[in-house]
Amino acid sequence: MKVGLLGLGKMGLQLARNMIDKGHQVEAFDVNEAAVASLQEAGGSGHSTAIAVIEALEKPRIIWLMVPAGTLIDRIVSEIEPYLSEGDIVIDGGNSHYKDSVRRYEHLARKGVHFLDIGTSGGTEGARHGACLMIGGDKQAFTFVEPVIRDIAIADGYMYTGLAGSGHFLKMVHNGIEYGMMQAIAEGFEILEKSQYTYEYEKVAKVWNHGSVIRSWLMELMENAFQEDPKLDSIKGVMHSSGEGKWTIETALDLQVPAPVIAMSLLMRYRSLEEDTFHGKVVAALRNQFGGHAVEKA
Amino acid sequence: MKVGLLGLGKMGLQLARNMIDKGHQVEAFDVNEAAVASLQEAGGSGHSTAIAVIEALEKPRIIWLMVPAGTLIDRIVSEIEPYLSEGDIVIDGGNSHYKDSVRRYEHLARKGVHFLDIGTSGGTEGARHGACLMIGGDKQAFTFVEPVIRDIAIADGYMYTGLAGSGHFLKMVHNGIEYGMMQAIAEGFEILEKSQYTYEYEKVAKVWNHGSVIRSWLMELMENAFQEDPKLDSIKGVMHSSGEGKWTIETALDLQVPAPVIAMSLLMRYRSLEEDTFHGKVVAALRNQFGGHAVEKA
Repeated sequence: MKVGLLGLGKMGLQLARNMIDKGHQVEAFDVNEAAVASLQEAGGSGHSTAIAVIEALEKPRIIWLMVPAGTLIDRIVSEIEPYLSEGDIVIDGGNSHYKDSVRRYEHLARKGVHFLDIGTSGGTEGARHGACLMIGGDKQAFTFVEPVIRDIAIADGYMYTGLAGSGHFLKMVHNGIEYGMMQAIAEGFEILEKSQYTYEYEKVAKVWNHGSVIRSWLMELMENAFQEDPKLDSIKGVMHSSGEGKWTIETALDLQVPAPVIAMSLLMRYRSLEEDTFHGKVVAALRNQFGGHAVEKA
Repeated sequence: MKVGLLGLGKMGLQLARNMIDKGHQVEAFDVNEAAVASLQEAGGSGHSTAIAVIEALEKPRIIWLMVPAGTLIDRIVSEIEPYLSEGDIVIDGGNSHYKDSVRRYEHLARKGVHFLDIGTSGGTEGARHGACLMIGGDKQAFTFVEPVIRDIAIADGYMYTGLAGSGHFLKMVHNGIEYGMMQAIAEGFEILEKSQYTYEYEKVAKVWNHGSVIRSWLMELMENAFQEDPKLDSIKGVMHSSGEGKWTIETALDLQVPAPVIAMSLLMRYRSLEEDTFHGKVVAALRNQFGGHAVEKA
């Protein structure tokens, strides 16, 4: 099929290569000219504007967005909207908030344009060789695009999830689970590191990946990481996040779901962003006030 | 090799079958006569006492305990100790506390008897067809028993971890990580369940197992569980525990390791054991006291 791809970043370019491998024709645009050049080398057709991509497609058009979540998506949708016709399909394959996806779905539905929210998991390696895709939106639009989705997903690695927003919602919760699993693994290794025993962590991750209850792709990634750097000495323990963990907890609060493990994994990420904390100063000051306990000077 | 196996419960009997499959000779005892009969059917030699097992072995003897953690291990060690000779190897393949294992190691070392603490993961299926084993204790004892260990472990599924206690310590931390991963997965599914969307959880677990970041054996088990019972209606959400999560947190506290995710997963298990809570009554009473907020009558 012919797919218009807007956004050739880490994920977009790999997805494009994946599509091209499977015989699909990719018409793409990115503000980064080097990325467009890479796409052309891979066998895709590069364009200098999003509109040019739209014009290169046949109706019903498939326009696949792989750009960072947020207002950029709205700007692109506004820009291409006048050029879209009834029956066209806009796909957001990024990590948008599901409520934004519902809003965009409803907005485009008014002129008969379909909007699919696709949660994409598996990292760049998955995007290149077989992703895991969770797809919300109109069933008929999904069915139309399914040949492409099937081709770029790993075997059994895609799922139509129903109503608009349900794909991004499921991906959001997936990421929340990911936060918790990662923090659990991390706490375990920290207990090992501070214990009286000496373990080779690469070997630990490897043995845990062979027959144990906690075998997992994340543990395989730990095996790689410890192979490259046995004690992770070259890495600072600063844990950034890109929003999905926060959204998961905001959603859990709205739904009154007690989700303390996912919440704590998010809060520990925030803690890691600071060298010192104001709450630490507060507790130290209070201990000093009531008990004369020594404080450490800043 | 010839192995004396004491304890033919869920794990012990499967390990025995595994050993027998690989050509080892299993001399075993269990208080449960039906289990001994099952062993005999599987091709092992059943005995009516632990001492009879010891007497059926050749020096240096390998005596493998697969019994519940706690004082039972001490009782068995006391019982068999007079019949052991220098160079014999006692193995605890259960979930003992690593400090108990260190104590038992030191006790038996006084008469030249080796003690290996083996953490065994992978459940009954692993015990039967390929376990994951973490082995602490004397290297020479490990090397002597390694042919049996290699045979019953899955490929790459065993690791000599060093000093006495290090095998059970590693298994304990493994279980702590398992608690956190399980609770993270569980919270994710609860958010899905309380959301406005309708997901088929078996399909969700399946798609997440194909290419996603959170693919794991635990998620495969969720796929099975949801296949058997789509909404888990037949199960009450009571989460028992058998000690290793608690020990992990006690150890984390001793080592001053912030391990909030593993701690919360343990505390949520405790919460699940109660229909109502005293702390709930306290908070309700206080809200009523200061704000006149209604309380629900018991």
